[in-house]
Amino acid sequence: MTANQQRIEQHIESLSRFTATPGKGVTRLTYSEEDLQARNYIKEKMMNYGLRVTEDGFGNIFGKLEGTLPDAPSVIVGSHFDSVPNGGAYDGTAGVVVGLEVAALFKENNMKPAYPLEIIALVEEEGSRFGGGLMGSRGMMGLLTEEDFKKLADRDGILAVDAMADIWVNPANGKKRDPKTMKAFLELHIEQGPILEEKGIQIGVVETIVGLTQLEVTVQGKAGHAGTTPMDRRSDALVSASQIIAALPRLATDEGEGTVITTGRLNVFPNGANVIPDKVVFTVDIRSGKEEHVLNVVRKLEAFIAQQNCHGINTSTEQQLYIAPKELDADIRSLLKEASDKLEIPYCSINSGAGHDAMVFSDFTACGMVFIPSKDGLSHCPEEWSDASHLADGTDIIYETVKRLTEAKRL
Amino acid sequence: MTANQQRIEQHIESLSRFTATPGKGVTRLTYSEEDLQARNYIKEKMMNYGLRVTEDGFGNIFGKLEGTLPDAPSVIVGSHFDSVPNGGAYDGTAGVVVGLEVAALFKENNMKPAYPLEIIALVEEEGSRFGGGLMGSRGMMGLLTEEDFKKLADRDGILAVDAMADIWVNPANGKKRDPKTMKAFLELHIEQGPILEEKGIQIGVVETIVGLTQLEVTVQGKAGHAGTTPMDRRSDALVSASQIIAALPRLATDEGEGTVITTGRLNVFPNGANVIPDKVVFTVDIRSGKEEHVLNVVRKLEAFIAQQNCHGINTSTEQQLYIAPKELDADIRSLLKEASDKLEIPYCSINSGAGHDAMVFSDFTACGMVFIPSKDGLSHCPEEWSDASHLADGTDIIYETVKRLTEAKRL
Repeated sequence: MTANQQRIEQHIESLSRFTATPGKGVTRLTYSEEDLQARNYIKEKMMNYGLRVTEDGFGNIFGKLEGTLPDAPSVIVGSHFDSVPNGGAYDGTAGVVVGLEVAALFKENNMKPAYPLEIIALVEEEGSRFGGGLMGSRGMMGLLTEEDFKKLADRDGILAVDAMADIWVNPANGKKRDPKTMKAFLELHIEQGPILEEKGIQIGVVETIVGLTQLEVTVQGKAGHAGTTPMDRRSDALVSASQIIAALPRLATDEGEGTVITTGRLNVFPNGANVIPDKVVFTVDIRSGKEEHVLNVVRKLEAFIAQQNCHGINTSTEQQLYIAPKELDADIRSLLKEASDKLEIPYCSINSGAGHDAMVFSDFTACGMVFIPSKDGLSHCPEEWSDASHLADGTDIIYETVKRLTEAKRL
Repeated sequence: MTANQQRIEQHIESLSRFTATPGKGVTRLTYSEEDLQARNYIKEKMMNYGLRVTEDGFGNIFGKLEGTLPDAPSVIVGSHFDSVPNGGAYDGTAGVVVGLEVAALFKENNMKPAYPLEIIALVEEEGSRFGGGLMGSRGMMGLLTEEDFKKLADRDGILAVDAMADIWVNPANGKKRDPKTMKAFLELHIEQGPILEEKGIQIGVVETIVGLTQLEVTVQGKAGHAGTTPMDRRSDALVSASQIIAALPRLATDEGEGTVITTGRLNVFPNGANVIPDKVVFTVDIRSGKEEHVLNVVRKLEAFIAQQNCHGINTSTEQQLYIAPKELDADIRSLLKEASDKLEIPYCSINSGAGHDAMVFSDFTACGMVFIPSKDGLSHCPEEWSDASHLADGTDIIYETVKRLTEAKRL
C-alpha cells in the first residue's frame, strides 16, 4: 500500500470536529463558522503538500500542482466538504481527504506531472443551506447565473453572498471555469448504500449515476383557532400535506426498479399547537437509474397534488433541480479497473443511487468515480462510517490513475 | 355608554405594535422582548389608573385597588397578554384592555370598592413558547410545581427561568395565590368563532368551556440517504407521522357534536431535503363540550398511533394538558345577564370552544366570561378583528357586574 492510512484517518477525524452539532454528527453548512474552520484546515494541508491554493467566487477551494506542459488542462481530484444537518464524517469529506492524500503522495514520491494536478473541495453539494444541491459544481460550470446566485438565501433569509462575506470568501473572485482547462475529474465517495458491504468488496467503479429531481411543494390553507373552527369549515394545510406525503411511497414502489421518493424537509406555518396550519412547505426528492421512472413519478405526483385543490386548499409545485441519469467516462472506468487489477484490490461495477458533483462535471469533462463500502449502508446520519483501509485502497487506485492521466514522472 | 371606546381602541392599537412580526400579525411570546414592551405598557396604565402594581414569580401582572373591608378577597378582571405566532391583536389582549378600562372607570367615577378590585394580565395562556398552555393561571393556582416550572424550556432549549431573567421578571417573587384571596374572576374574550356574528348579537354570556387535551406525539424512525436507501428498507418517521395526521379529522367527525382535533405544530428532524427523517414530533389538540368525546378520541388515537409501531418505527405519546369541560358560575352568569338587561345590550348564552384561564380559576373561585363577536369567526391569525363598540359594550357589562361584586360606592 502506498497511501498513508494513519494520515487519512487523521484528516477524517480532524474535519469531523468542525461541526455545529458536536456529539450529534457532522453539521457543516456552507459558509458557516464550521465551513470556515474546515476551509482553513484544507487550505493549510494543500499548502503543506506544495499546492498553490485559490478560491473561486463560490468559495470552492482549488490546490494546484503545475505540470510541465504549458497551458495544459488539469486532472482534478476531490469532492465536497459541506454536510447535511446531523450527517456523518465521510460523505464528501472522504473524497476531499483522498484528494489531499494524492497530493501528499505526489510530494513524498517527488512526482512531477506533465498535466497539472488539482485537488478540489466543493461547497454546498447537499443543498442543506441554500436548497437544490450541487451548487459548487453547477456554479463553476456556469449552470448558476450570477443573478440567481445573488438571490440565493437560506431559510432565515440570509443571502448566500452575505454569508460568504462573513467567512471572508470573496464573491468577486472568478466564478466560471472554462471546461477546456479540465482534462478529467476523479471523485472517491462512500457508497451510502448496502451493496459493497453485502458483497464484501471494498471498491466499486461507478458506471452510471441516478437521475434525480427535487420539487418544493407549497400547500396553502387558512389559519384558524384549533378550538373554535368546526371540522367542516377548515382548510388545514397540514392535513392536506399529510395526505400527499402518506401517498408518496406508493408512487415509487409502483414504478419499481429501485425508484425512490423522499420528503426530507417539511416546515409548518405558523407552527403553534392551537392554530390550524395555514401553510406547509415540503421537498420531494425522486431518483431512478432510468429517466422515464423519474418523469412518470413527477407526472403522477403533480396530478395527485392538484387533486388537493379544494375546500380552500391551494397547492403549488416548483422544480428546484433536475438532472438526468449520467453514464461516467468509459476510458476512465477502464483506467480505474486496470489500476485495481495492478494493485490486486478486488472491485466491482456499481451504479450510484445518490447524486454527485461528478454528474455535473460529466457534461464538460471525462469523469470517474470510486465507491467504498458504507457500514450498514448508512449515510446522512451520525452513524455513517467507512473503513480507513478502504479509503487507503481507493486512494491508491486514484493515485495510480492520476499518475497515468497527468503523465507524471518521478524527478 | 360609560366605557371610553377611543381609549379602548388606543390600548388595542398600542399593544398590537409589540409584535416580533410587524405586518404579519401579533407574535408576542412569553418572556420575549415584545412581552417586556407590553408588560411595561400595561404596568404604566395600571399605575395611571391608581392601581398598586405587582408581579408574581411567573410574571403575571396584578394591579390592585384596595377595598374598604379589611382582608377581603378580590374581584379580579383580566385575561392573558401573550399571543400565538402570527396571531391577532384581540385574543387575550382584549380582556386585559377591558380590565384596564374598568380600572379607568373606577378612577374617573370615584368609585370606592368594599372588596378589592384587581386587574390581571396573565402570561403564557397559549403555550406558544413553553407548551401546554394556561401556564400563568395554572401556575398561580399551584397546578405547576416549582420543580416542573424550573424544567420548562422552549424549542431552542432556553429555560423559562432564564428567559424571565432577560426581561427582569423575578422568579423569586411569590408564585402561589391563596384561593381565599379571590372572590370572583371575570374575563372578556373574543369568541374566536362565527356564532355571535352570524346571530348579529354583540354579547355572549359563556355557560360552559369545552374540555381539551393536548398530546405530544413522537415518531422515531431511522435516518438514511434519500437516494441510496431502497423503499422497502426505510423507517421514515415523516411518512408514518403523515399517515397518523391524515387520519385525524375522521376521528373527530366520527365523534361529532362539535368535537375538533388539530395538529398545529410539527417538527421534522434532521429536516434536510435529501435525508430520510428519523424523528417527527407533533402536537394533537382535541376539544369537545362533552368529556366522553375527548376521552373517546384520545383512546382511538392512541390505538391508531400504536399500530404504526412496525418496520423500525417507534411511537410515543405524552399528554401535556388535560382539562375537563367546565360550567361557569351560575350566580355570575345571572349578574352579567342582569347588567346586559339594565344597559339594554342584547346578549345570548354561548359555549366556549376555546380553553381560557377562567377554566383554571373556576375550580377555585366564581368565574364569569363575556364573549364579543370575531369578524368572520377568525382568530389566531393576523386577520383577527373585533369591533371596538362591542368591546365597549362588554366593558360596560363587566363594569356594572364588578361594581356589584365589589360593593363599590361613589365617593
